[in-house]
Amino acid sequence: MIGHVRIVGTGLVGTSLGIALSTRGFHVSLQDPSPTACRLARDLGAGRLAAELDPSEEPDLVVVAAPPDVASDVVVASLRRWPRAVVTDVASVKQTVLDGVLRSGVDASRYVGSHPMAGRERSGAAAARGDLFDGRAWVVVPHEGSSEDAIQAVREIATVVGSAVRVMPAREHDEAVAAVSHVPQVAASIVAACLRDLPEPAVGLAGQGLRDVTRIAASDPGLWTQILAGNAEAVREVLLAVRTQLDDVVDALGALVDGDGKGSLGTLSGMLEAGNLGQARIPGKHGAAPTAYAVVSVLVPDEPGSLARLLTDMGNAGINLEDMHLEHGLGQPFGVAYISVVPAAAEPLAETLTGLGWRLHD
Amino acid sequence: MIGHVRIVGTGLVGTSLGIALSTRGFHVSLQDPSPTACRLARDLGAGRLAAELDPSEEPDLVVVAAPPDVASDVVVASLRRWPRAVVTDVASVKQTVLDGVLRSGVDASRYVGSHPMAGRERSGAAAARGDLFDGRAWVVVPHEGSSEDAIQAVREIATVVGSAVRVMPAREHDEAVAAVSHVPQVAASIVAACLRDLPEPAVGLAGQGLRDVTRIAASDPGLWTQILAGNAEAVREVLLAVRTQLDDVVDALGALVDGDGKGSLGTLSGMLEAGNLGQARIPGKHGAAPTAYAVVSVLVPDEPGSLARLLTDMGNAGINLEDMHLEHGLGQPFGVAYISVVPAAAEPLAETLTGLGWRLHD
Repeated sequence: MIGHVRIVGTGLVGTSLGIALSTRGFHVSLQDPSPTACRLARDLGAGRLAAELDPSEEPDLVVVAAPPDVASDVVVASLRRWPRAVVTDVASVKQTVLDGVLRSGVDASRYVGSHPMAGRERSGAAAARGDLFDGRAWVVVPHEGSSEDAIQAVREIATVVGSAVRVMPAREHDEAVAAVSHVPQVAASIVAACLRDLPEPAVGLAGQGLRDVTRIAASDPGLWTQILAGNAEAVREVLLAVRTQLDDVVDALGALVDGDGKGSLGTLSGMLEAGNLGQARIPGKHGAAPTAYAVVSVLVPDEPGSLARLLTDMGNAGINLEDMHLEHGLGQPFGVAYISVVPAAAEPLAETLTGLGWRLHD
Repeated sequence: MIGHVRIVGTGLVGTSLGIALSTRGFHVSLQDPSPTACRLARDLGAGRLAAELDPSEEPDLVVVAAPPDVASDVVVASLRRWPRAVVTDVASVKQTVLDGVLRSGVDASRYVGSHPMAGRERSGAAAARGDLFDGRAWVVVPHEGSSEDAIQAVREIATVVGSAVRVMPAREHDEAVAAVSHVPQVAASIVAACLRDLPEPAVGLAGQGLRDVTRIAASDPGLWTQILAGNAEAVREVLLAVRTQLDDVVDALGALVDGDGKGSLGTLSGMLEAGNLGQARIPGKHGAAPTAYAVVSVLVPDEPGSLARLLTDMGNAGINLEDMHLEHGLGQPFGVAYISVVPAAAEPLAETLTGLGWRLHD
């Protein structure tokens, strides 16, 4: 049983975890190279300042929430400082941290890696929230020498803050996030970078597709440089596969421009079909298999109160919405609300709204 | 003044345009190689069957809504068949269509290209809707020989169905859509294709970022093969710039894995920063400069009625919402609603919701 948790590093993740654990009655102590950052986390309810505790009091669990490039050093120092505590870290790359720990020669049986998949576009303690981990995946990353007790301690903390635990070796974790997180980040950033010098009228033709593809291109370059560098091998591996496909597409287009274009259409079509297949594998929002929601589209005048009126009408219809997305026309005073519901609810919702005078689209 | 519009090709765009124009009192006649498709469009209210009209009745405007690879042939045939009608097409690539028309030797002064930026993920007449063009950009693409009357006729039709007219030469249009539409499609498809053979536990770590980047990878391969092939030169040009950046990233990661990594972090950071800059240029949903909306985050239990109750409460607060997005936790019985409002409305909304017992996150 974990009673006292030491959090080392009071940025977004460390402070959020401190709040989540303090709320649930854990004794949390906070430590950070910056006394100001540490006091801010304390003021936000993340725990007590470690500096004010009896130095001989050993925590049961140490959570290293330091930047990725110093995580392994801090893990090693923590294992050395506290001879009985379980130590974990929350860096979003795991093999380099593990390598650093093992290389140090310290007894690593009390170390188990972690990756709570719960980032935000904002960073720092000020962006912290106690429910950051609610319902997110928390990847627990044991190594061969991790003790069963240590693994259990990390699982307990992840579960207690509301995360769904996934257990995965470091290499497998890094390869997975390379494909589902790091390479998509690179792709979004490069596509967005192509817009930097585009003439204004061209940028003006941008639509929802481009907005979706490039949303994460707004992420913090400092943090992502560390993440990509920390997972260099796995990211490069996936990017090489991307480059092979890109080369095929470039060659196919080149053959259409300069040559006879033989086989070009097959190459393009094959790439698009592979994209269909890969996209279909992405789990739905609950982490389950993708669910086919029915979408009811409603025309919404862009006047104060009109969307609110729609929301009220939907609320009165008593139907549980899965998602809603608004699309606004270019320079036009209205939008289209795409309302996702379970298939069985679509018809009643459509009938209710039509009866109330709303214009549907499908 | 346009009275009689002939629509050649009754797929998604042709049928939608027929409905939009018929609703507004235009005389619309429909023509398609498939009599079945043509009758379906007629049944949906898109207009009358051309086969049932007096063959000598000449339309004022012919809209060629045929697949991109036959558009120029159909434009040429239409110009030849009707000696006075203005002819436009709606293909999403414009230079190849124009080249085909000019090459034919026909008098092209009555031809003006069009690109209503109003696709859907579904295709065919059955997916048609009369408001497809409402508030979308409609790019009008005159060539040097286009008559002023012809340009005006196409502008009139675009405006009457609710689109915002943009005028742009064919080459400029094709270069613009290569960057803002075609290359993002290729990037999304290739990133998604990398997921095709990923182990199941790895796919299970997918989050909202990946879902956004790959959403359009679900698009129709047949249509997109034609679009990419039809804009091969401009798409290749942008993809070559993508490949140069990708090579830089791959080399930087390689230097971190195998070499001294000198300069690697600068390369990664530069790519991510360029992505920040490009992303920031993308216009907001109204086609205006990006607006910084304030986001109010609310915890929503995933039970029937709870989101509806939130929507009702928001409706009662009388606040105009700009956007709402739901995020569900993995395996957890609740979600977070991210509600975008104009900055001035955020505080009143937050206060109202808190007062009604909702838990906010920020």
